[in-house]
Amino acid sequence: MINYRIFCVSDHTGVTVEAVARSVLAQFPRIEFSSTTLPFVDSVERARAAVARIAAESPALVFSSLTDSSLREPFHSAGIMLFDLFELIAPAVGSTLEQPPTPSGGRTHGMTPGYDARIDAVNFALQLDDGLSPERLDGADLILVGVSRVGKTPSALYLALQYGLRAANYPLTPDDLEQPVLPAVLQEHQPKLRGLTLLPERLAAIRQVRYPDSRYASLAQCRDELAAAEALFRRHAVPILDTTRMSVEEIAARLRHAA
Amino acid sequence: MINYRIFCVSDHTGVTVEAVARSVLAQFPRIEFSSTTLPFVDSVERARAAVARIAAESPALVFSSLTDSSLREPFHSAGIMLFDLFELIAPAVGSTLEQPPTPSGGRTHGMTPGYDARIDAVNFALQLDDGLSPERLDGADLILVGVSRVGKTPSALYLALQYGLRAANYPLTPDDLEQPVLPAVLQEHQPKLRGLTLLPERLAAIRQVRYPDSRYASLAQCRDELAAAEALFRRHAVPILDTTRMSVEEIAARLRHAA
Repeated sequence: MINYRIFCVSDHTGVTVEAVARSVLAQFPRIEFSSTTLPFVDSVERARAAVARIAAESPALVFSSLTDSSLREPFHSAGIMLFDLFELIAPAVGSTLEQPPTPSGGRTHGMTPGYDARIDAVNFALQLDDGLSPERLDGADLILVGVSRVGKTPSALYLALQYGLRAANYPLTPDDLEQPVLPAVLQEHQPKLRGLTLLPERLAAIRQVRYPDSRYASLAQCRDELAAAEALFRRHAVPILDTTRMSVEEIAARLRHAA
Repeated sequence: MINYRIFCVSDHTGVTVEAVARSVLAQFPRIEFSSTTLPFVDSVERARAAVARIAAESPALVFSSLTDSSLREPFHSAGIMLFDLFELIAPAVGSTLEQPPTPSGGRTHGMTPGYDARIDAVNFALQLDDGLSPERLDGADLILVGVSRVGKTPSALYLALQYGLRAANYPLTPDDLEQPVLPAVLQEHQPKLRGLTLLPERLAAIRQVRYPDSRYASLAQCRDELAAAEALFRRHAVPILDTTRMSVEEIAARLRHAA
């Protein structure tokens, strides 16, 4: 089996081209890969340095997002084939739009929340983490609810960083779970509530790392808490997301698009 | 000027196809867009529902990442043109690799850190936020250092969520800044240190939101603190990143790849 070197070359962060390479390469399960990202290749000089680096490795596959064709030229001259997002996609889009792509671009068409909105959202998520500042729940876009260690905090932070959404999170304590209804402070925000759950075995494993051999980490306790939480979610018609086999991207995308 | 509806259709989260659409459309600055993401289109039934929704809007441009051609077929049948990542890129990769892409795929080739590693990194970033638990700095991949409100926490969280890196952050207080050297607890970790800085005007604006008209938020104070911090970074050969005009993705990518 041939072991390919993968390079992801970008004139910016490389996050997008890495994601594309990962998706496309998943369709070639019989090939072995190891991957290197070369970000901020934003001058002809840096493009030449990348070419020199890549030429030393063989066989290599190069995925790229290089906005300007002058940055791609050193690769082509050296006989390195690029799978470039712009080369492969922009011309097709241009012919539909009946206008040629303009390399510099830079206009983001408002498709992404700005830096400030996302940082504000991170601060909001931290300030309203774990049930803090419930009087500020009015300002939340979403309120993630669930038992301890079910994944509320990372999900709230990812919603903030990726989408600029202000996500609070509220832990259901064993005391809360003994009540027949959700805590009053949550009830008034019912449309924003999203219930997180996990398989009990998975929750127990997570808690076990934190407090080994505790009652808190026991399978019985996890099972009881999760069952009580789900009963509360159903009673209040809170959408429930079982995150057991999900990445944090998937959790966030599902929460964002949940009814 | 024509106002296009953009749809990003994915059988998974849609994060990648959104990023690609955003990059490509930035090359068409004279077109107006509004964008909708349809994630988790992972059955023919859902593909048909997406087709119905898109057919009702005109003119529309559809970007997609649909792994399986059976999910793309309802769009083609309805005469909707897709700019699909797999259709546009996988065949070219396949001909280089001399094997056809297999739709289901799913193997990620270890190009992305797993869920557990990323969640562990988030917990680490939170536990070592703002100078907490300095005795655990040994476990850090990176230590972000800078004055209050310079953007350390969101950067550390993004490094954790995107790359699974364990990033601690340590605030330089006015007391620290009066010393001729970095705090001792940092000095022993010099290779992991990354100094963050901002333009004083930008820092003052950020602090102003939090504590309006305070000395803390004054331009003079911000200027003094940033100058003292940069002098410390230079004395200890700590790489400095000026994040003034950067997105959180760019900050994280530059920190990750910094010397």
